[in-house]
Amino acid sequence: MAAVKVFCPAISTASIRVILCLEEVGAEYERVNIDMATGEHKSPAHVAKNPFGQVPAFQDGDLVLFESRAIGRYVLRKFKSSDVDLLHGSSLEESAMVDVWLEVEAQQYDKAISPIFYQAVIIPRFYGGTTDEKVVEENLVKLAKVLDVYEARLSHTKYLAGDFFSFADLSHYPVTHFSIKIPQVAALFDARPHVKAWWESLESRPASKKVTAGLPQLS
Amino acid sequence: MAAVKVFCPAISTASIRVILCLEEVGAEYERVNIDMATGEHKSPAHVAKNPFGQVPAFQDGDLVLFESRAIGRYVLRKFKSSDVDLLHGSSLEESAMVDVWLEVEAQQYDKAISPIFYQAVIIPRFYGGTTDEKVVEENLVKLAKVLDVYEARLSHTKYLAGDFFSFADLSHYPVTHFSIKIPQVAALFDARPHVKAWWESLESRPASKKVTAGLPQLS
Ligand SMILES: N[C@@H](CCC(=O)N[C@@H](CS)C(=O)NCC(=O)O)C(=O)O
Ligand SMILES: N[C@@H](CCC(=O)N[C@@H](CS)C(=O)NCC(=O)O)C(=O)O
Repeated sequence: MAAVKVFCPAISTASIRVILCLEEVGAEYERVNIDMATGEHKSPAHVAKNPFGQVPAFQDGDLVLFESRAIGRYVLRKFKSSDVDLLHGSSLEESAMVDVWLEVEAQQYDKAISPIFYQAVIIPRFYGGTTDEKVVEENLVKLAKVLDVYEARLSHTKYLAGDFFSFADLSHYPVTHFSIKIPQVAALFDARPHVKAWWESLESRPASKKVTAGLPQLS
Repeated sequence: MAAVKVFCPAISTASIRVILCLEEVGAEYERVNIDMATGEHKSPAHVAKNPFGQVPAFQDGDLVLFESRAIGRYVLRKFKSSDVDLLHGSSLEESAMVDVWLEVEAQQYDKAISPIFYQAVIIPRFYGGTTDEKVVEENLVKLAKVLDVYEARLSHTKYLAGDFFSFADLSHYPVTHFSIKIPQVAALFDARPHVKAWWESLESRPASKKVTAGLPQLS
Protein backbone atom coordinates (compact mmCIF):
# COMPACT_ATOMS: atom_id res chain seq x y z
CA MET A 1 0.00 0.00 0.00
CA ALA A 2 1.51 3.32 -1.07
CA ALA A 3 1.78 5.87 1.73
CA VAL A 4 -0.79 8.67 1.79
CA LYS A 5 0.50 12.16 0.98
CA VAL A 6 -0.01 15.49 2.72
CA PHE A 7 0.78 18.59 0.68
CA CYS A 8 1.75 21.37 3.09
CA PRO A 9 4.56 23.49 4.52
CA ALA A 10 6.23 22.48 7.80
CA ILE A 11 4.41 25.20 9.72
CA SER A 12 0.66 25.58 9.22
CA THR A 13 -1.86 25.00 11.95
CA ALA A 14 -4.43 23.32 9.70
CA SER A 15 -1.75 21.05 8.24
CA ILE A 16 -0.39 20.05 11.66
CA ARG A 17 -3.94 18.91 12.54
CA VAL A 18 -3.72 16.32 9.74
CA ILE A 19 -0.14 15.25 10.54
CA LEU A 20 -1.11 14.73 14.19
CA CYS A 21 -3.98 12.43 13.15
CA LEU A 22 -1.57 10.39 11.04
CA GLU A 23 0.89 10.14 13.92
CA GLU A 24 -1.78 9.18 16.47
CA VAL A 25 -2.95 6.25 14.32
CA GLY A 26 0.59 5.31 13.30
CA ALA A 27 -0.08 5.55 9.57
CA GLU A 28 2.69 5.75 7.01
CA TYR A 29 2.66 9.09 5.20
CA GLU A 30 4.75 11.36 3.09
CA ARG A 31 4.78 15.16 3.49
CA VAL A 32 5.19 16.90 0.15
CA ASN A 33 6.43 20.43 0.79
CA ILE A 34 4.41 23.41 -0.44
CA ASP A 35 6.42 26.63 -0.39
CA MET A 36 3.96 29.32 0.61
CA ALA A 37 6.66 32.02 0.43
CA THR A 38 6.77 31.58 -3.36
CA GLY A 39 2.98 31.22 -3.58
CA GLU A 40 3.08 27.51 -4.45
CA HIS A 41 -0.30 27.04 -2.73
CA LYS A 42 -1.83 29.16 -5.53
CA SER A 43 -0.16 27.16 -8.34
CA PRO A 44 -2.40 25.22 -10.76
CA ALA A 45 -0.95 21.91 -9.50
CA HIS A 46 -1.96 22.70 -5.91
CA VAL A 47 -5.28 24.35 -6.76
CA ALA A 48 -6.19 21.12 -8.59
CA LYS A 49 -5.98 19.44 -5.18
CA ASN A 50 -7.37 22.25 -3.00
CA PRO A 51 -9.63 24.54 -5.08
CA PHE A 52 -9.40 27.25 -2.41
CA GLY A 53 -5.61 27.47 -2.85
CA GLN A 54 -4.98 26.67 0.79
CA VAL A 55 -2.95 24.09 2.65
CA PRO A 56 -3.23 21.26 3.44
CA ALA A 57 -4.29 19.00 0.59
CA PHE A 58 -4.24 15.22 0.91
CA GLN A 59 -4.02 12.26 -1.43
CA ASP A 60 -4.69 8.57 -0.96
CA GLY A 61 -4.43 6.90 -4.37
CA ASP A 62 -7.17 8.43 -6.53
CA LEU A 63 -8.86 10.15 -3.61
CA VAL A 64 -7.92 13.82 -3.15
CA LEU A 65 -9.20 15.68 -0.09
CA PHE A 66 -8.88 19.13 1.47
CA GLU A 67 -10.13 20.92 4.63
CA SER A 68 -8.10 19.70 7.59
CA ARG A 69 -11.00 18.54 9.77
CA ALA A 70 -12.46 16.49 6.91
CA ILE A 71 -9.07 14.96 6.12
CA GLY A 72 -8.62 14.20 9.82
CA ARG A 73 -11.93 12.33 9.96
CA TYR A 74 -10.93 10.27 6.91
CA VAL A 75 -7.51 9.37 8.36
CA LEU A 76 -8.99 8.45 11.74
CA ARG A 77 -11.68 6.30 10.13
CA LYS A 78 -9.42 4.58 7.62
CA PHE A 79 -6.61 3.74 10.05
CA LYS A 80 -8.66 3.14 13.21
CA SER A 81 -7.85 0.06 15.28
CA SER A 82 -9.11 -1.57 18.45
CA ASP A 83 -6.45 0.52 20.24
CA VAL A 84 -6.97 3.87 18.55
CA ASP A 85 -10.37 5.18 17.49
CA LEU A 86 -10.40 8.92 18.03
CA LEU A 87 -13.91 9.34 16.53
CA HIS A 88 -15.58 6.64 18.68
CA GLY A 89 -17.64 5.76 15.63
CA SER A 90 -18.99 2.53 17.09
CA SER A 91 -21.00 4.39 19.75
CA LEU A 92 -23.77 6.71 18.59
CA GLU A 93 -23.64 8.71 21.84
CA GLU A 94 -19.86 8.97 22.14
CA SER A 95 -19.38 9.91 18.50
CA ALA A 96 -22.05 12.59 18.96
CA MET A 97 -20.06 14.09 21.84
CA VAL A 98 -16.89 14.02 19.72
CA ASP A 99 -18.79 15.84 16.97
CA VAL A 100 -20.19 18.42 19.40
CA TRP A 101 -16.78 19.36 20.80
CA LEU A 102 -15.15 19.25 17.39
CA GLU A 103 -17.73 21.79 16.24
CA VAL A 104 -17.05 23.85 19.37
CA GLU A 105 -13.36 23.85 18.43
CA ALA A 106 -14.13 25.11 14.91
CA GLN A 107 -17.05 27.43 15.69
CA GLN A 108 -16.16 28.90 19.07
CA TYR A 109 -12.53 28.25 20.07
CA ASP A 110 -10.84 28.72 16.71
CA LYS A 111 -12.89 31.83 15.91
CA ALA A 112 -11.55 33.46 19.11
CA ILE A 113 -7.95 32.23 19.26
CA SER A 114 -7.01 32.37 15.57
CA PRO A 115 -7.42 36.16 15.23
CA ILE A 116 -5.20 36.57 18.33
CA PHE A 117 -2.57 34.27 16.87
CA TYR A 118 -2.77 36.04 13.51
CA GLN A 119 -2.49 39.54 14.98
CA ALA A 120 0.05 38.84 17.71
CA VAL A 121 2.32 36.42 15.84
CA ILE A 122 1.74 36.04 12.10
CA ILE A 123 1.40 39.73 11.15
CA PRO A 124 4.53 41.01 12.92
CA ARG A 125 6.62 37.92 12.20
CA PHE A 126 5.72 37.06 8.61
CA TYR A 127 4.33 40.27 7.15
CA GLY A 128 6.39 42.86 9.03
CA GLY A 129 3.13 44.52 10.08
CA THR A 130 1.81 45.89 13.35
CA THR A 131 -0.52 44.01 15.66
CA ASP A 132 -4.04 45.45 15.87
CA GLU A 133 -4.37 45.49 19.66
CA LYS A 134 -8.12 46.11 19.51
CA VAL A 135 -8.68 42.84 17.65
CA VAL A 136 -6.46 41.05 20.19
CA GLU A 137 -8.35 42.53 23.15
CA GLU A 138 -11.80 41.71 21.72
CA ASN A 139 -10.83 38.14 21.01
CA LEU A 140 -9.17 37.63 24.39
CA VAL A 141 -12.56 38.45 25.92
CA LYS A 142 -14.24 35.89 23.63
CA LEU A 143 -11.56 33.29 24.34
CA ALA A 144 -11.96 33.77 28.10
CA LYS A 145 -15.69 33.02 27.79
CA VAL A 146 -15.02 29.90 25.73
CA LEU A 147 -12.44 28.72 28.26
CA ASP A 148 -14.94 29.26 31.08
CA VAL A 149 -17.19 26.72 29.34
CA TYR A 150 -14.21 24.38 28.97
CA GLU A 151 -13.26 24.74 32.63
CA ALA A 152 -16.77 23.72 33.69
CA ARG A 153 -16.82 20.82 31.24
CA LEU A 154 -13.34 19.56 32.16
CA SER A 155 -14.18 19.56 35.86
CA HIS A 156 -16.62 16.72 35.02
CA THR A 157 -14.77 14.80 32.31
CA LYS A 158 -11.07 14.30 31.67
CA TYR A 159 -11.34 15.27 28.01
CA LEU A 160 -13.85 17.36 26.09
CA ALA A 161 -16.03 14.58 24.63
CA GLY A 162 -15.84 12.44 27.78
CA ASP A 163 -13.23 10.46 29.71
CA PHE A 164 -11.42 9.55 26.51
CA PHE A 165 -8.98 11.44 24.29
CA SER A 166 -10.59 12.17 20.91
CA PHE A 167 -10.29 14.12 17.68
CA ALA A 168 -12.10 16.97 19.48
CA ASP A 169 -9.12 17.43 21.83
CA LEU A 170 -6.50 16.83 19.13
CA SER A 171 -8.05 19.45 16.89
CA HIS A 172 -7.26 22.18 19.44
CA TYR A 173 -3.59 21.32 19.54
CA PRO A 174 -1.95 23.15 16.60
CA VAL A 175 -3.10 26.74 17.12
CA THR A 176 -2.82 26.37 20.90
CA HIS A 177 0.76 25.08 20.70
CA PHE A 178 1.80 28.36 19.08
CA SER A 179 -0.61 30.73 20.81
CA ILE A 180 0.06 29.66 24.38
CA LYS A 181 3.43 31.42 24.08
CA ILE A 182 1.50 34.72 23.94
CA PRO A 183 1.50 35.95 27.58
CA GLN A 184 -2.20 37.02 27.64
CA VAL A 185 -3.25 33.63 26.27
CA ALA A 186 -1.04 31.77 28.75
CA ALA A 187 -2.64 33.80 31.56
CA LEU A 188 -6.12 32.61 30.53
CA PHE A 189 -4.97 28.99 30.69
CA ASP A 190 -3.08 29.46 33.97
CA ALA A 191 -6.20 30.89 35.63
CA ARG A 192 -8.24 27.73 34.86
CA PRO A 193 -6.79 24.63 36.55
CA HIS A 194 -8.80 22.00 34.62
CA VAL A 195 -8.08 23.66 31.29
CA LYS A 196 -4.41 23.88 32.22
CA ALA A 197 -4.23 20.17 33.19
CA TRP A 198 -6.05 19.22 29.98
CA TRP A 199 -3.59 21.25 27.93
CA GLU A 200 -0.63 19.64 29.70
CA SER A 201 -2.02 16.19 28.93
CA LEU A 202 -2.28 17.13 25.24
CA GLU A 203 1.28 18.51 25.20
CA SER A 204 2.66 15.34 26.75
CA ARG A 205 1.29 12.95 24.12
CA PRO A 206 4.06 11.25 22.13
CA ALA A 207 2.44 12.28 18.82
CA SER A 208 2.31 15.96 19.87
CA LYS A 209 5.93 15.90 20.99
CA LYS A 210 7.09 14.23 17.80
CA VAL A 211 5.20 16.58 15.49
CA THR A 212 6.26 19.79 17.21
CA ALA A 213 9.83 18.75 18.09
CA GLY A 214 11.31 20.05 14.87
CA LEU A 215 9.26 23.25 14.62
CA PRO A 216 10.63 26.72 15.40
CA GLN A 217 9.04 28.69 18.21
CA LEU A 218 6.99 31.48 16.69
CA SER A 219 6.67 33.80 19.66
CA MET B 1 -39.92 5.91 21.79
CA ALA B 2 -40.36 9.50 22.95
CA ALA B 3 -39.82 12.08 20.22
CA VAL B 4 -36.54 13.98 20.21
CA LYS B 5 -36.69 17.67 21.10
CA VAL B 6 -35.20 20.74 19.44
CA PHE B 7 -35.03 23.89 21.56
CA CYS B 8 -35.09 26.88 19.24
CA PRO B 9 -37.13 29.79 17.87
CA ALA B 10 -39.00 29.39 14.56
CA ILE B 11 -36.44 31.48 12.70
CA SER B 12 -32.77 30.72 13.20
CA THR B 13 -30.52 29.48 10.43
CA ALA B 14 -28.60 27.03 12.64
CA SER B 15 -31.85 25.64 14.05
CA ILE B 16 -33.42 25.20 10.62
CA ARG B 17 -30.39 23.05 9.68
CA VAL B 18 -31.40 20.59 12.42
CA ILE B 19 -35.12 20.67 11.61
CA LEU B 20 -34.35 19.96 7.95
CA CYS B 21 -32.31 16.89 8.93
CA LEU B 22 -35.24 15.62 11.00
CA GLU B 23 -37.65 16.20 8.11
CA GLU B 24 -35.38 14.54 5.54
CA VAL B 25 -35.15 11.33 7.61
CA GLY B 26 -38.82 11.49 8.61
CA ALA B 27 -38.14 11.41 12.36
CA GLU B 28 -40.72 12.38 14.92
CA TYR B 29 -39.68 15.51 16.81
CA GLU B 30 -40.99 18.25 19.01
CA ARG B 31 -39.88 21.89 18.69
CA VAL B 32 -39.75 23.60 22.08
CA ASN B 33 -39.84 27.34 21.52
CA ILE B 34 -37.04 29.55 22.81
CA ASP B 35 -37.97 33.21 22.85
CA MET B 36 -34.81 35.07 21.91
CA ALA B 37 -36.56 38.45 22.17
CA THR B 38 -36.80 37.96 25.95
CA GLY B 39 -33.31 36.46 26.15
CA GLU B 40 -34.53 32.95 26.92
CA HIS B 41 -31.44 31.51 25.17
CA LYS B 42 -29.37 33.00 28.02
CA SER B 43 -31.57 31.53 30.78
CA PRO B 44 -30.04 28.94 33.14
CA ALA B 45 -32.40 26.26 31.80
CA HIS B 46 -31.21 26.79 28.23
CA VAL B 47 -27.54 27.34 29.11
CA ALA B 48 -27.65 23.95 30.86
CA LYS B 49 -28.36 22.50 27.40
CA ASN B 50 -26.18 24.80 25.30
CA PRO B 51 -23.34 26.26 27.42
CA PHE B 52 -22.72 28.98 24.82
CA GLY B 53 -26.24 30.32 25.29
CA GLN B 54 -27.10 29.83 21.62
CA VAL B 55 -29.81 28.05 19.72
CA PRO B 56 -30.38 25.28 18.85
CA ALA B 57 -30.07 22.74 21.65
CA PHE B 58 -31.26 19.16 21.23
CA GLN B 59 -32.38 16.35 23.51
CA ASP B 60 -32.85 12.63 22.94
CA GLY B 61 -33.62 11.04 26.29
CA ASP B 62 -30.55 11.62 28.48
CA LEU B 63 -28.42 12.81 25.61
CA VAL B 64 -28.20 16.60 25.22
CA LEU B 65 -26.39 18.07 22.23
CA PHE B 66 -25.66 21.48 20.74
CA GLU B 67 -23.92 22.89 17.63
CA SER B 68 -26.22 22.41 14.65
CA ARG B 69 -23.79 20.49 12.42
CA ALA B 70 -23.03 18.02 15.23
CA ILE B 71 -26.74 17.57 16.00
CA GLY B 72 -27.37 17.08 12.28
CA ARG B 73 -24.80 14.29 12.09
CA TYR B 74 -26.40 12.56 15.08
CA VAL B 75 -29.90 12.77 13.62
CA LEU B 76 -28.75 11.53 10.22
CA ARG B 77 -26.85 8.62 11.77
CA LYS B 78 -29.54 7.63 14.24
CA PHE B 79 -32.46 7.72 11.80
CA LYS B 80 -30.68 6.62 8.63
CA SER B 81 -32.37 3.98 6.49
CA SER B 82 -31.64 2.13 3.28
CA ASP B 83 -33.53 4.96 1.54
CA VAL B 84 -32.03 7.96 3.31
CA ASP B 85 -28.40 8.14 4.38
CA LEU B 86 -27.24 11.72 3.95
CA LEU B 87 -23.78 11.02 5.44
CA HIS B 88 -22.99 8.00 3.21
CA GLY B 89 -21.29 6.45 6.22
CA SER B 90 -20.99 3.00 4.69
CA SER B 91 -18.51 4.23 2.06
CA LEU B 92 -15.17 5.57 3.27
CA GLU B 93 -14.67 7.60 0.09
CA GLU B 94 -18.20 8.99 -0.20
CA SER B 95 -18.39 9.96 3.46
CA ALA B 96 -15.02 11.70 3.05
CA MET B 97 -16.46 13.80 0.22
CA VAL B 98 -19.51 14.64 2.34
CA ASP B 99 -17.16 15.73 5.13
CA VAL B 100 -15.02 17.84 2.77
CA TRP B 101 -17.99 19.79 1.40
CA LEU B 102 -19.60 20.10 4.80
CA GLU B 103 -16.38 21.71 6.02
CA VAL B 104 -16.38 23.95 2.94
CA GLU B 105 -19.90 25.05 3.90
CA ALA B 106 -18.79 25.94 7.43
CA GLN B 107 -15.30 27.28 6.72
CA GLN B 108 -15.69 29.03 3.36
CA TYR B 109 -19.33 29.55 2.36
CA ASP B 110 -20.83 30.42 5.74
CA LYS B 111 -17.92 32.74 6.61
CA ALA B 112 -18.69 34.77 3.47
CA ILE B 113 -22.49 34.70 3.29
CA SER B 114 -23.37 35.03 6.97
CA PRO B 115 -21.82 38.51 7.41
CA ILE B 116 -23.79 39.64 4.33
CA PHE B 117 -27.01 38.22 5.75
CA TYR B 118 -26.29 39.76 9.14
CA GLN B 119 -25.48 43.21 7.76
CA ALA B 120 -28.11 43.39 5.03
CA VAL B 121 -31.01 41.72 6.85
CA ILE B 122 -30.59 41.10 10.58
CA ILE B 123 -29.15 44.49 11.61
CA PRO B 124 -31.74 46.71 9.87
CA ARG B 125 -34.67 44.38 10.52
CA PHE B 126 -34.08 43.20 14.09
CA TYR B 127 -31.78 45.81 15.63
CA GLY B 128 -32.95 48.94 13.81
CA GLY B 129 -29.33 49.54 12.79
CA THR B 130 -27.65 50.54 9.56
CA THR B 131 -25.99 48.08 7.18
CA ASP B 132 -22.20 48.40 7.01
CA GLU B 133 -21.87 48.42 3.21
CA LYS B 134 -18.11 47.88 3.37
CA VAL B 135 -18.58 44.53 5.15
CA VAL B 136 -21.22 43.57 2.58
CA GLU B 137 -18.95 44.47 -0.35
CA GLU B 138 -15.93 42.61 1.05
CA ASN B 139 -17.94 39.49 1.67
CA LEU B 140 -19.67 39.59 -1.71
CA VAL B 141 -16.18 39.37 -3.24
CA LYS B 142 -15.38 36.38 -1.02
CA LEU B 143 -18.72 34.73 -1.78
CA ALA B 144 -18.18 35.16 -5.52
CA LYS B 145 -14.85 33.30 -5.25
CA VAL B 146 -16.44 30.49 -3.25
CA LEU B 147 -19.25 30.21 -5.81
CA ASP B 148 -16.69 30.03 -8.63
CA VAL B 149 -15.33 26.89 -6.96
CA TYR B 150 -18.89 25.55 -6.63
CA GLU B 151 -19.66 26.28 -10.28
CA ALA B 152 -16.61 24.27 -11.37
CA ARG B 153 -17.47 21.43 -9.00
CA LEU B 154 -21.16 21.31 -9.93
CA SER B 155 -20.33 21.15 -13.63
CA HIS B 156 -18.88 17.68 -12.88
CA THR B 157 -21.23 16.34 -10.20
CA LYS B 158 -24.92 16.98 -9.58
CA TYR B 159 -24.38 17.74 -5.88
CA LEU B 160 -21.36 18.91 -3.92
CA ALA B 161 -20.14 15.58 -2.54
CA GLY B 162 -20.97 13.65 -5.73
CA ASP B 163 -24.03 12.62 -7.71
CA PHE B 164 -26.05 12.22 -4.53
CA PHE B 165 -27.81 14.71 -2.25
CA SER B 166 -26.07 14.83 1.14
CA PHE B 167 -25.78 16.69 4.42
CA ALA B 168 -23.18 18.91 2.68
CA ASP B 169 -25.87 20.31 0.37
CA LEU B 170 -28.55 20.46 3.04
CA SER B 171 -26.30 22.44 5.35
CA HIS B 172 -26.21 25.34 2.86
CA TYR B 173 -29.97 25.64 2.76
CA PRO B 174 -30.98 27.80 5.75
CA VAL B 175 -28.80 30.88 5.32
CA THR B 176 -29.16 30.72 1.54
CA HIS B 177 -32.96 30.57 1.71
CA PHE B 178 -32.97 33.96 3.42
CA SER B 179 -29.93 35.54 1.73
CA ILE B 180 -30.89 34.80 -1.86
CA LYS B 181 -33.56 37.49 -1.51
CA ILE B 182 -30.72 40.05 -1.29
CA PRO B 183 -30.32 41.31 -4.90
CA GLN B 184 -26.50 41.21 -4.96
CA VAL B 185 -26.52 37.63 -3.68
CA ALA B 186 -29.18 36.60 -6.20
CA ALA B 187 -27.02 38.11 -8.96
CA LEU B 188 -24.08 35.89 -7.95
CA PHE B 189 -26.27 32.79 -8.20
CA ASP B 190 -27.91 33.89 -11.46
CA ALA B 191 -24.50 34.35 -13.10
CA ARG B 192 -23.52 30.71 -12.42
CA PRO B 193 -25.83 28.22 -14.18
CA HIS B 194 -24.72 25.07 -12.32
CA VAL B 195 -24.92 26.79 -8.94
CA LYS B 196 -28.35 28.13 -9.86
CA ALA B 197 -29.64 24.68 -10.92
CA TRP B 198 -28.21 23.14 -7.73
CA TRP B 199 -29.95 25.77 -5.62
CA GLU B 200 -33.26 25.18 -7.42
CA SER B 201 -32.97 21.45 -6.75
CA LEU B 202 -32.46 22.19 -3.03
CA GLU B 203 -35.43 24.59 -2.94
CA SER B 204 -37.71 22.02 -4.56
CA ARG B 205 -37.14 19.25 -2.00
CA PRO B 206 -40.29 18.42 -0.03
CA ALA B 207 -38.45 18.83 3.28
CA SER B 208 -37.21 22.32 2.31
CA LYS B 209 -40.67 23.40 1.21
CA LYS B 210 -42.30 22.07 4.35
CA VAL B 211 -39.79 23.69 6.73
CA THR B 212 -39.82 27.10 5.09
CA ALA B 213 -43.53 27.21 4.20
CA GLY B 214 -44.54 28.86 7.46
CA LEU B 215 -41.62 31.26 7.77
CA PRO B 216 -41.87 34.99 7.07
CA GLN B 217 -39.73 36.43 4.29
CA LEU B 218 -36.95 38.45 5.89
CA SER B 219 -35.94 40.66 2.99
N1 LIG C 1 -10.41 25.55 6.86
C1 LIG C 1 -9.14 25.23 6.26
C2 LIG C 1 -8.17 26.34 6.56
C3 LIG C 1 -6.89 26.18 5.82
C4 LIG C 1 -6.01 27.42 5.96
O1 LIG C 1 -6.47 28.48 6.40
N2 LIG C 1 -4.75 27.27 5.61
C5 LIG C 1 -3.85 28.39 5.65
C6 LIG C 1 -2.54 28.01 6.31
S1 LIG C 1 -2.78 27.40 7.99
C7 LIG C 1 -3.60 28.84 4.23
O2 LIG C 1 -3.49 28.03 3.30
N3 LIG C 1 -3.52 30.17 4.00
C8 LIG C 1 -3.28 30.73 2.71
C9 LIG C 1 -4.54 31.24 2.04
O3 LIG C 1 -5.64 31.14 2.63
O4 LIG C 1 -4.40 31.77 0.93
C10 LIG C 1 -8.63 23.90 6.81
O5 LIG C 1 -8.95 23.59 7.96
O6 LIG C 1 -7.92 23.16 6.10
N1 LIG D 1 -22.24 27.27 15.53
C1 LIG D 1 -23.57 27.34 16.12
C2 LIG D 1 -24.13 28.70 15.86
C3 LIG D 1 -25.42 28.92 16.57
C4 LIG D 1 -25.88 30.36 16.46
O1 LIG D 1 -25.10 31.25 16.06
N2 LIG D 1 -27.14 30.60 16.82
C5 LIG D 1 -27.63 31.95 16.81
C6 LIG D 1 -29.00 32.00 16.15
S1 LIG D 1 -28.95 31.39 14.45
C7 LIG D 1 -27.74 32.42 18.25
O2 LIG D 1 -28.09 31.65 19.14
N3 LIG D 1 -27.40 33.68 18.51
C8 LIG D 1 -27.46 34.27 19.80
C9 LIG D 1 -26.12 34.36 20.48
O3 LIG D 1 -25.10 33.94 19.91
O4 LIG D 1 -26.09 34.87 21.61
C10 LIG D 1 -24.47 26.25 15.54
O5 LIG D 1 -24.23 25.89 14.38
O6 LIG D 1 -25.36 25.74 16.23
